[in-house]
Amino acid sequence: MAFQYLTNIPLEQAKKEYVQLLTANGMGAGSERMNVTQACGRTTARAVYAHICAPHYHASAMDGIAVQASDTFGATQTTPVALTPEQYVTLDTGDPIPENCDAVIMVEDIVKNEDGSVRLYDAAAPWQHIRQIGEDICAGEMILPAYTTVSPSAIGALLAGGVMEIDVLRQPIVGIIPTGDEIIPPTSDPAPGDIIEFNSSIFSAMLRQWGALPVTYPIVPDRFDQIKSAVSAALSECDMVILNAGSSAGREDYSAQVIRESGGVLYHGIAMKPGKPAILGYQGAKAILGVPGYPVSGIIVIEQLLKPLIEAFSRHPLPQESSVRAFLSRPVVSGLKYQEFVRVRMGYVDGRLIASPLSRGSGVVSSFMKADGILTIPQGLEGYEAGSEVTVQLLRPQEELKHTLVAIGSHDPLLDEVSDLLHRKDTSCFMASTHTGSMGGIMAVRRKETHIAGIHLLDENDGTYNESYVRKYFPQGGVRLVECVGRTQGIMAAKGNPKNITGIDSLTAPGIRYVNRQKGSGTRILMDYLCKKNHLDTSAVYGYDREEFTHTSVAAQIASGSADAGMGIYSAAKMYDLSFIPVCTEQYDLLIPDSAWDTPLVQELIRILKSDAFAGKLKELGGYTLQSPGEIRCAF
Amino acid sequence: MAFQYLTNIPLEQAKKEYVQLLTANGMGAGSERMNVTQACGRTTARAVYAHICAPHYHASAMDGIAVQASDTFGATQTTPVALTPEQYVTLDTGDPIPENCDAVIMVEDIVKNEDGSVRLYDAAAPWQHIRQIGEDICAGEMILPAYTTVSPSAIGALLAGGVMEIDVLRQPIVGIIPTGDEIIPPTSDPAPGDIIEFNSSIFSAMLRQWGALPVTYPIVPDRFDQIKSAVSAALSECDMVILNAGSSAGREDYSAQVIRESGGVLYHGIAMKPGKPAILGYQGAKAILGVPGYPVSGIIVIEQLLKPLIEAFSRHPLPQESSVRAFLSRPVVSGLKYQEFVRVRMGYVDGRLIASPLSRGSGVVSSFMKADGILTIPQGLEGYEAGSEVTVQLLRPQEELKHTLVAIGSHDPLLDEVSDLLHRKDTSCFMASTHTGSMGGIMAVRRKETHIAGIHLLDENDGTYNESYVRKYFPQGGVRLVECVGRTQGIMAAKGNPKNITGIDSLTAPGIRYVNRQKGSGTRILMDYLCKKNHLDTSAVYGYDREEFTHTSVAAQIASGSADAGMGIYSAAKMYDLSFIPVCTEQYDLLIPDSAWDTPLVQELIRILKSDAFAGKLKELGGYTLQSPGEIRCAF
Repeated sequence: MAFQYLTNIPLEQAKKEYVQLLTANGMGAGSERMNVTQACGRTTARAVYAHICAPHYHASAMDGIAVQASDTFGATQTTPVALTPEQYVTLDTGDPIPENCDAVIMVEDIVKNEDGSVRLYDAAAPWQHIRQIGEDICAGEMILPAYTTVSPSAIGALLAGGVMEIDVLRQPIVGIIPTGDEIIPPTSDPAPGDIIEFNSSIFSAMLRQWGALPVTYPIVPDRFDQIKSAVSAALSECDMVILNAGSSAGREDYSAQVIRESGGVLYHGIAMKPGKPAILGYQGAKAILGVPGYPVSGIIVIEQLLKPLIEAFSRHPLPQESSVRAFLSRPVVSGLKYQEFVRVRMGYVDGRLIASPLSRGSGVVSSFMKADGILTIPQGLEGYEAGSEVTVQLLRPQEELKHTLVAIGSHDPLLDEVSDLLHRKDTSCFMASTHTGSMGGIMAVRRKETHIAGIHLLDENDGTYNESYVRKYFPQGGVRLVECVGRTQGIMAAKGNPKNITGIDSLTAPGIRYVNRQKGSGTRILMDYLCKKNHLDTSAVYGYDREEFTHTSVAAQIASGSADAGMGIYSAAKMYDLSFIPVCTEQYDLLIPDSAWDTPLVQELIRILKSDAFAGKLKELGGYTLQSPGEIRCAF
Repeated sequence: MAFQYLTNIPLEQAKKEYVQLLTANGMGAGSERMNVTQACGRTTARAVYAHICAPHYHASAMDGIAVQASDTFGATQTTPVALTPEQYVTLDTGDPIPENCDAVIMVEDIVKNEDGSVRLYDAAAPWQHIRQIGEDICAGEMILPAYTTVSPSAIGALLAGGVMEIDVLRQPIVGIIPTGDEIIPPTSDPAPGDIIEFNSSIFSAMLRQWGALPVTYPIVPDRFDQIKSAVSAALSECDMVILNAGSSAGREDYSAQVIRESGGVLYHGIAMKPGKPAILGYQGAKAILGVPGYPVSGIIVIEQLLKPLIEAFSRHPLPQESSVRAFLSRPVVSGLKYQEFVRVRMGYVDGRLIASPLSRGSGVVSSFMKADGILTIPQGLEGYEAGSEVTVQLLRPQEELKHTLVAIGSHDPLLDEVSDLLHRKDTSCFMASTHTGSMGGIMAVRRKETHIAGIHLLDENDGTYNESYVRKYFPQGGVRLVECVGRTQGIMAAKGNPKNITGIDSLTAPGIRYVNRQKGSGTRILMDYLCKKNHLDTSAVYGYDREEFTHTSVAAQIASGSADAGMGIYSAAKMYDLSFIPVCTEQYDLLIPDSAWDTPLVQELIRILKSDAFAGKLKELGGYTLQSPGEIRCAF
C-alpha cells in the first residue's frame, strides 16, 4: 500500500484502512496459558475440549440402595422381591454406583427385614435414579469455541470437564507517551504556564475498560530526538503506541516526522471534529497513533481510531453503546467537511427525551464527564435545527436517564448540593443541571425541556421577584413557583478590597476592571437595572462585555487578579475568600411545570428542600435566608 | 424483627426483608482513600470539589502576541496603531498571559516593523483569544456527587481540578466456604465419588464482576464444629459469608444450625426453583448466606439473593440485564408454589426471536454456560404453552443473538467444529446447536424455529437417505437439502472388544448391556430398522430403553464400563478409543428453509462446508467421507 499524505480523509475510510493495513502486517494477539479460575472475561485462543466427563462417575441421585435392576424384575405390590445384603449397597446422594449395580432404589421404597435383607414392591428400571457419566459434559466435547469470552459459568463447565488451564489471547500492551515542554505530572499546586498531564490517566482508564494493558511513559520534552527515542523504546515493549502531542500549535509536526521515520504514516489529518490532526502511523504490525493534546480531541481519537485496533487485535468486538432517538433543545451547526461529535446532556421531560448540546471546546474535559451521549453529525451535513429528532449514542444507561431530574436555569451552588442529597437518598436518582440564566430557564420550561428552572428575576416596576415574569411568559398557566431561598447579591472584590470598591458607583473609576454575567441571567438583569437606576453609563465600565456563566467563574476571575469587581452571590465570594459589598437580597425560586409536579423526582426534590440536611448545607455555603423552602408560592 | 422459620417465602419478599434487616443492622461500606488515577469504576464516598481552577491560569488560545486591549483601541484598516516592543509579548498557544495584558492578537493579524514594533489594523477586544481561568472547572465547584461511579473522563476532570486522591467506598469482601466430605479441589484426574469443587470459582468470578472481593476458604468436611469455626473465622475477616453446602441431602441441616448459632436465620426455604433450600442468615450487619450445593441452584441463589446485598452495601445499582420478548419453542411446566427460573437458548429465525428451554437439572452447569437468557415463571403460574410470547432476561447482548446461526437436529461433533470455524472467521457471528435428533430437526424447520437441521434419516423402503422424509414433511416445499457428509455408523464396544461383539446379532447375548439413542434420532431409527431386518427382539436387548442424546454420551457410557455396546458414528468411537464394528455408511445432510438460505449466516456456513479447513477437521475426527459438501442435493 502506498503511503499517502492527505489532510481530510473521511473517518470511516481511515478507520477501515488502518485496521486492514495493520492486520495485513500481522497485527494480532499471541496466546498465554492461564489458570481457568483466573480467566473470567478473557478470550479463548483456541477451542477448548473437555478432558473428562462430568459427572466423571455414575453417581446416585438419591439416598437409598444400589442394586442390579435384573435382581428386582418381577417385584410388584403383591409379589415383593427380597434382596440379600450381598445384593445391595446402601448409599447417599452423590455416592458412586458400585460395580455390578445399575439402578438406585429410594430409601422410601424399601422395607428392611431384621436379617438385613430388604423387600421391594416395585421392579427397578435399569439406570433409574442414577446421574450417568457425562450427563453434563462428555469428555472430548467442545466446551468453548475459539475467540469466546470466558463467563463465570464457563469456568464451572471447564473445571467440571477437568480443564485446569486454557490458552487465552494476550491483552494488547498500549504505550502512552505524553510530550510537551510545559506538561507536568498531576499536582494540586501547578505554577502558571504549567499544563497538568491528565490525558494519560484518562486514556489508561479507557484502555483498561477495553481489556488492554496501558503503560504510561515519562513526559518527553518537545525535542525531536528525545521523542523519537521514546517512541522507539515504547515500540520495543508494546503492541501499540499513543504519541500524545503537546497542545501548542506547530508542535505536532514533530509527531508526524517522528512517526514517519519510525515506520510510516498512513494518514495525517482525518475529517473529524474534534480530532482532525490525528496521525495514523505504524511500524510493521504495531500502531503508532498521533493523538492531539486537547483532552476531548484525545478521547474522541482514542475511541474512534484506537478502539477498532484493540478489537481487531483481541478478536473480540467490544460492547457497542446503544443509541436512542432524542429531540434537540438547541440548533447545532457543523461544517460540511468533517464528521463532528457533539456531547449532549439528556433527560426525559414530559415523556420526551431531550438532548442539549454541551460546550464544544476541546479543552473542556468536564463537558465529557457531564455528557450523557454523543451526537454524530455526518460529514456533508450542516447540522440540525432545534427540535429535530436525532440519534444519540448513549454514554449512560437509558434507565438512569429516566430517573434524572433535569434543571435548566439560573446557576447557584446549592443546586449541586441538592443533586448530592438526591443521589445519596436514592442512588438510582440523578440530577443534571445546565446553567443558562433565569430567562433561559423560563424558555426551557416553555419548551418543555426541563423539570425545574431556578429563577431570580427582578421586576423593575415594583421590586418584586419572579411572579410577574411567570405571569407574562405563561399566560395560560400550567406552572408553579416554588419558594427556594433568599440570597444576598453584592459586588465581589479582591480579598481586603485593595481598590476600595464601595458599590456600583466605583465601577467606572479608572483602573477598575469589571467582569460581568451573560445576558439573560438574573444577575445581569439586576446589574443592568442597578446601573440604570444609578445613571451609570455601562460603556464606561471597563469589561462590562466580559461575560461569565456562573457566580463561581466570576469569583474565580477576581481571585486570579484578572478582574477587580463582579456582581455575584455571597456564597461564591466566600468560596474564594473575596471581599463582598452587599447590594440587595433577592428571591431565588424554582419554576416547575404542572406536568412534572407529581413525578417522584420532583416530589423527592420538594422533600429535600424542606429537610434539615438542605438547611445545614446552605448554612455552610453562607449568604442564604430560608423562610419556607419547598412551599408553593403561587400556582399559575 | 422476629426470627421466623418458614419454608416457602416468596422470593421478592425474602429479598426485600433481607436487605432491610441487614441495612437496619448497619450494613454498608466504609470508605478508603485512593489515588484518582486508580479510581476508575469505583464509587465516590462523598461529594468531591475542585481544589484549583482548570485552566488554573489565563492561557493564550493562539500563537501571537499578548497586549493590553486598551492600547489597541482605535486601530482600523485606515488608521493602524503601532505598539512598541515594550507594549507586547510574543507567546504560543498555552502560554500564560503576562501581567497587565488582557488580550491576544493572532500572529496572522500582525505586521512587524523593522524596529521591533508591530502594526495592528484592528482593535482587540478585552479577553479575546484567551482561555480564562476556570473555563473548564472552577475551584470549589462540585466535580462529582457522592455515590457516583468514577469514569475515565471524571479522572481527567478531577486531576484538572487539582484533586489527587479521593475517598471511594470500600468493596465488600465476600468469604466463600465450600463444605462436604467428598468435595475436592479442581483436578483433571478425580477418583470415583470425588466431587470437584468448582462452585467457588464460579461465585468468585460473579462477585468480581459485581465489584466485590471474593475470598475462598479451604474445603471444610461435613462436621458441625469445623463448619462452625470456619464460619466464625470468615465472619471476622469478611463483610458477607457464603456457606456452600455439600450436595448430599440432609447435609444442609448443619448449615442452618451453624448459621443460627453464629447469629440468626431470617428465612430457611424460599419459594424459588432452583434454590429452594437457601438460608438467609446473618450476624449483625454481616450476611451469612446458605447456598445449595448444585451449581445451577448456587448461581441462581447468588444472583437473586446476594447481588441485592452487594448493591445495598456498595450504594450502587448494578447494571440490569435487559429483557426481550420471545416465542417459546416448547411448553414449560412449572409448579404453582414457587417462582421458577428456566434457562433458554435463543435465536432470531425468520424475523422472530425463538426461546428454547434448556435442561432444568440443577447439576447441569453447561446448560448455564449455553444459556442466552433466563425465563422467569412467576409463583402461582403453571407455566407457558408452546408458542407463547414471553419475557426473557438476556444473558448475552441482543446484537449477538441477531448474528447467531441456529441449528436444531441430529447431533454430530462436526457441528461444534463448524461453530468454531464460523466464529473464527468472523467473531461477530455465533452458532447455537441443540441436539434433538433428526426428526426433532425436521419439526423445528416446520415450526420455523431453526436456520438449519442436521438429518440422517433412512428410508426403509429403498435404502435412500433424507429425501423421502423431506418430501413427506414438506409437501408444500420451501426447503433445500444441502449435502454435508457421509459417515460410518457402527456398533461401539469397549477397547479391544472383550465381549467379542460382532454385530447386531451379538446384542441379545447374555451379559451384553446395550445403551441406546433417544427415539426420533436418526441413529435410533437406523437401529430399530436393523433390528427389524435382522428379526431381533428388541425386548431381549438389555438396556434397549436406556437412552442417551448424543453419540459422545453413548461412547462415554461404554468407555465407563456401564454398557458393553451402543450404535454410533466412528468419530465418537475414536474419541473414546473404543472398538468399532462398522454397520453402514449413511448420508448426513443439512435441511435449510428457503427463508434462511440467503442470510449471511447460512451463506457463510455454505462457504465453510466447501472449505479446506472443514475437510481437514473431518479428517482429524475420522469416519467421514466427502463428495461435494455445501451443494444443494435437492430443492423442494
